[in-house]
Amino acid sequence: MTLEVHPVAGLGAIEPGDDLLSMVADALRPLQPRTGDVLVVTHKVISKAEGRVVEIEGDPEAFKEKLVESEAVSIVRRRGDLIIAETRHGFICANAGVDRSNAQSGTMILLPEDPDRSARRLKGRLDHEFGCNLAVIISDTFGRPWRRGLTDVAIGVAGIRPIQDLKGTRDWSGYQLDVTEIAVVDELASAADLVMGKASGIPAALVRGYDFEPGEGTASELVRPVDEDLFR
Amino acid sequence: MTLEVHPVAGLGAIEPGDDLLSMVADALRPLQPRTGDVLVVTHKVISKAEGRVVEIEGDPEAFKEKLVESEAVSIVRRRGDLIIAETRHGFICANAGVDRSNAQSGTMILLPEDPDRSARRLKGRLDHEFGCNLAVIISDTFGRPWRRGLTDVAIGVAGIRPIQDLKGTRDWSGYQLDVTEIAVVDELASAADLVMGKASGIPAALVRGYDFEPGEGTASELVRPVDEDLFR
Repeated sequence: MTLEVHPVAGLGAIEPGDDLLSMVADALRPLQPRTGDVLVVTHKVISKAEGRVVEIEGDPEAFKEKLVESEAVSIVRRRGDLIIAETRHGFICANAGVDRSNAQSGTMILLPEDPDRSARRLKGRLDHEFGCNLAVIISDTFGRPWRRGLTDVAIGVAGIRPIQDLKGTRDWSGYQLDVTEIAVVDELASAADLVMGKASGIPAALVRGYDFEPGEGTASELVRPVDEDLFR
Repeated sequence: MTLEVHPVAGLGAIEPGDDLLSMVADALRPLQPRTGDVLVVTHKVISKAEGRVVEIEGDPEAFKEKLVESEAVSIVRRRGDLIIAETRHGFICANAGVDRSNAQSGTMILLPEDPDRSARRLKGRLDHEFGCNLAVIISDTFGRPWRRGLTDVAIGVAGIRPIQDLKGTRDWSGYQLDVTEIAVVDELASAADLVMGKASGIPAALVRGYDFEPGEGTASELVRPVDEDLFR
């Protein structure tokens, strides 16, 4: 089945305290959301609406470093002004998610306190508004060890199992797949980023035609437990 | 602009020596490929057609380990039977790309010797056949440190710049983006995987509507140089 990834326009200028749920509902209406659609929203508009925006005081670099240290539960690596840190959600990323891009001049944006909760709220409102059953993903842009370039991944989910487990199923040559857990919400976040871009002012996309496994889900399922992790 | 991701059916049963170029051209014809389309093909059909298939001799686990060591240029981590290794292309992945899933029973599949070359050959044939200018991506399924679940990434490219560099451009709030290099070919590979799946027998997808930067490109641009890498 063909997958469609629709950009959701009209959400550029979110301010702290804005009624984001209504704004997203309005922006989605032309696409007529339906059961089975997956809405991907970059965390920045969520963070702004939830007031997770901090005004820079004093020297920006020093301020950022202090902010990163307060957002991080542990520092994984540090080299020069690059800090790879673990957030309180368990994600490992640059600057513990503290971000200056797409912030108003003079401010920095933090990750939402609980991106799963943000996703659930959005899903609740949109399901009610459109009489359907959506999946919602909150995304962020992360780097990777070993590979250059960033990709978008999921940091919050609602209504979708984040990992599709093919363990025990057979592939098309009859061989039993032993370890094949696919991070489908990360793949969906990446697909959505292709229509959003960083410079275009499109902070959301609707993916239609993906046959996902519904479920409560939480992005914490994507966090590899420390004892399985060979790279801390 | 809406992105479409079309599964490419009819390429299930590739054997060593098959004329893959003709088979892909036939499979694509119903989609009427056009300039600007991106074809993503999982490496397994490429590897099979190129004869990168090895018959297992003796104990499969011992055989696999020997094979991994011969495919790897370095072992990055080892725990139990899990080996994270660097391939001669520079990719760091489980088992240096040696894979038993989707192989005929009794065989293991290796990565293509030169996935960029495989992509260029495919692009050359398809551009000629359909009178257009395509991008081609060869994909594989990789794990990640810190995050559970696998995602598809690019291991070979033709006709597309693998990384989109937004350095120096301004985002929509006017802030200058400092480090924003997006691994668009990895995002395209992930988007394609959503219509392929591991168990469905669909080894290729055509992405339509993505405004990419054309260029010669090589997947080696995705390999982070050792001196920039904090996680070896």
